[in-house]
Amino acid sequence: MMNPVECIRRKRDGGILSRPEMEEFVGAYTRGEIPEYQMSAFLMAVYFNGMDSGETLAFTDIMLRSGDVIDLSSIPGRKVDKHSTGGVGDKVSLILAPMVAACGVPVPMISGRGLGHTGGTLDKLESIPGFRTGLSVGEFRQAVGGIGIALAGQTAEIAPADRKMYALRDVTGTIECLPLIAGSIMSKKLAEGIDALVLDVKAGPGAFMPTEGRAIELARLLVDIGERYGKQTLAFITAMDQPLGLAIGNWLEVAESITCLRGKNIPDLMEVTTVLGGAMVFLGRKAGSIEEGMQQCRSAIWSGKAYEKFLHVVERQGGDVALVRAPLEYRPAPQVVDVSAGRTGWITGFDTKRIGMLAVELGAGRKRIDDAVDPRTGIVLEKKLGDRVRAGDLVARLHLTQGANADLLAVELLSSITISDAPVQVGPRVLAVVDAAGVRPWRTPQVH
Amino acid sequence: MMNPVECIRRKRDGGILSRPEMEEFVGAYTRGEIPEYQMSAFLMAVYFNGMDSGETLAFTDIMLRSGDVIDLSSIPGRKVDKHSTGGVGDKVSLILAPMVAACGVPVPMISGRGLGHTGGTLDKLESIPGFRTGLSVGEFRQAVGGIGIALAGQTAEIAPADRKMYALRDVTGTIECLPLIAGSIMSKKLAEGIDALVLDVKAGPGAFMPTEGRAIELARLLVDIGERYGKQTLAFITAMDQPLGLAIGNWLEVAESITCLRGKNIPDLMEVTTVLGGAMVFLGRKAGSIEEGMQQCRSAIWSGKAYEKFLHVVERQGGDVALVRAPLEYRPAPQVVDVSAGRTGWITGFDTKRIGMLAVELGAGRKRIDDAVDPRTGIVLEKKLGDRVRAGDLVARLHLTQGANADLLAVELLSSITISDAPVQVGPRVLAVVDAAGVRPWRTPQVH
Repeated sequence: MMNPVECIRRKRDGGILSRPEMEEFVGAYTRGEIPEYQMSAFLMAVYFNGMDSGETLAFTDIMLRSGDVIDLSSIPGRKVDKHSTGGVGDKVSLILAPMVAACGVPVPMISGRGLGHTGGTLDKLESIPGFRTGLSVGEFRQAVGGIGIALAGQTAEIAPADRKMYALRDVTGTIECLPLIAGSIMSKKLAEGIDALVLDVKAGPGAFMPTEGRAIELARLLVDIGERYGKQTLAFITAMDQPLGLAIGNWLEVAESITCLRGKNIPDLMEVTTVLGGAMVFLGRKAGSIEEGMQQCRSAIWSGKAYEKFLHVVERQGGDVALVRAPLEYRPAPQVVDVSAGRTGWITGFDTKRIGMLAVELGAGRKRIDDAVDPRTGIVLEKKLGDRVRAGDLVARLHLTQGANADLLAVELLSSITISDAPVQVGPRVLAVVDAAGVRPWRTPQVH
Repeated sequence: MMNPVECIRRKRDGGILSRPEMEEFVGAYTRGEIPEYQMSAFLMAVYFNGMDSGETLAFTDIMLRSGDVIDLSSIPGRKVDKHSTGGVGDKVSLILAPMVAACGVPVPMISGRGLGHTGGTLDKLESIPGFRTGLSVGEFRQAVGGIGIALAGQTAEIAPADRKMYALRDVTGTIECLPLIAGSIMSKKLAEGIDALVLDVKAGPGAFMPTEGRAIELARLLVDIGERYGKQTLAFITAMDQPLGLAIGNWLEVAESITCLRGKNIPDLMEVTTVLGGAMVFLGRKAGSIEEGMQQCRSAIWSGKAYEKFLHVVERQGGDVALVRAPLEYRPAPQVVDVSAGRTGWITGFDTKRIGMLAVELGAGRKRIDDAVDPRTGIVLEKKLGDRVRAGDLVARLHLTQGANADLLAVELLSSITISDAPVQVGPRVLAVVDAAGVRPWRTPQVH
């Protein structure tokens, strides 16, 4: 085996590790034969010098093969999942998964928890009393086979090496590195037993990728890895210059998702959800194009089939169906506080990351891995980018715990929202699409 | 305290840590409060983004203050030491220290062991039977006070943080980084109780700094740190394009040094030794200029006083003085093998690093930290750069252990020496001098 220090020096000096070298180095780390301090130096060298496509694949492969790969081949149909790189108010999965499953495409979805300023689908699902995300591989397979959808958390058997690596990256300043991010995402997604994958790579100040260019770079990497594993992969670049939809906070987002599943159109949220869903239905071969897939998704909503599928999942996974049917019965947060505009004008900017951190502050997310979340807390916006407001108009409502300082938090929220004298042009929500052939601009077709 | 991950990210993103931040981060590491894996990621970020002058000073200071600083202020005179960044055949200290002490300048010298392809003064001294380098701080101080010279190894009390940091750098590919090298060197030298310091920064393919430019960069950093501590510091850039002098190997170098102390002129070796010695005598205020200091050094050799001082040190530190007086009595290596030129021409190149590694292979150095060295083994060159050779002429002698494969090693040595049809111009040995005012070219004056 190549000396570990030699591997570090090679990467440090801009060299490339062969696939066997990479497999040996990362493999030895995952087996505990290389200490954390050598891996962290290596990861920092990767941060500066990157990885080529062969290295990224080898890296992904070791993490993928460190655990179980779920086999869903006995279930008919092409299994398709979606992954988002994370945003504020991003409850897309809650609407999308039952909607796509209602179109006949099996959705084996494994989600994560909130990270930094972004929320996590698992935390949202668990705000439904009784909802159990800790499915065994057998339960997961049975749910996908039985009702065409399973919404679960990552088990200890899925890519354990990624868990070890991610924990190290988190404490050594080596998170923000495209090939490492791509390897981490894809090793988990490829372990799910999918046939195809749709990716939502968020771009903007509220996302991990601050610019469209960086987001496209990451999307290309993700698509490249997926395609090399023979999984058709489509990535959409979507805007994260404001929270998606209106609600931020676990139950608040579930409640918003339920209204959308029942037919309410929250434009930005439903545009992104329908485009991603249309792509999933297309990749699931239930539609001849993304646009046709989008039409089927809309039908699944209008017909009530998407909502019905959601009720099925909740029931199957032990959630309180009665509460989902009557979301206003949910016990409210102890304080609900109105936040009003201090001046007249147009909403021209959201400091989305700050709003995400504010939601964490309110109890909707975690500062430390073992913090508990309060599912009732969060923010519900009443205004979005481009909206006209008058001084005194309701801009948002804060849902707070008993002891929270409402005045301070209201000021913090208001100072995260820019109101100007002149309106701004709000850009498109879905910016571009990346597939094996490359990147092209996206223009969302009108479907009804 | 700033979050350790924040320190890593700041450095990773090209930022500067304030002196208190740096002190806190490195200090916490030395106290074991920050784990190795965070420090190694930080060091790799420093490798890429460097440190500014304030950071380098803070780094040096923490390592310096992690241990004892020897106080020699009660001993009259300005105490001056020399440090070399390491070369092949570099036995300068053995001649220089007694020579300068003989000129009346106290020399408190703490040396290290061989590292990679370069030898270490400690290993050389210990090839003298009985010679004890493990002096306590009290013994060290008494020797400097008593005979004006002490030759010792680094005790556990000197800069323990540097030892911990160096061990980590060694296994994480973060050795070759100027501010880290400078901090490591200066923290140890500043702990010796010196008033002034002369540095020999080797440049060339046989040195750690491969180019004169890099060597000057390092020299500037070292001088800057020394001067900020109020220690007058002079650095010379010297050539390492061939081994220094003729012998490579511990006892072989001691024997060569003894002949030089007795008056033999091995031109390249004695040029470097006299320039560095002249600078030390100048900084010790026993001469008005470096050139005058060089003249005093030559006198110390011709008068026999330098040799006499060497005998005093050997005696005081328990070495076999009789053997030093009669070096030919030393038990020889089991095999001494002549290596002859395969062709006629001029010596135009030495692969100095490879020759250094060959000496390690022969047993003169260590591949692992706990390897034993064989003091008798090594290489003695008969020809140097610019020399004319005829096919069959003796080029070098190998001093080998019993089991060594002489034929193979002779071929290896010969293939490290280039013989060409035309002679080359051999460059100067001392290339430049760096002081607080900057860098200027050096031209060695003729002294007799």
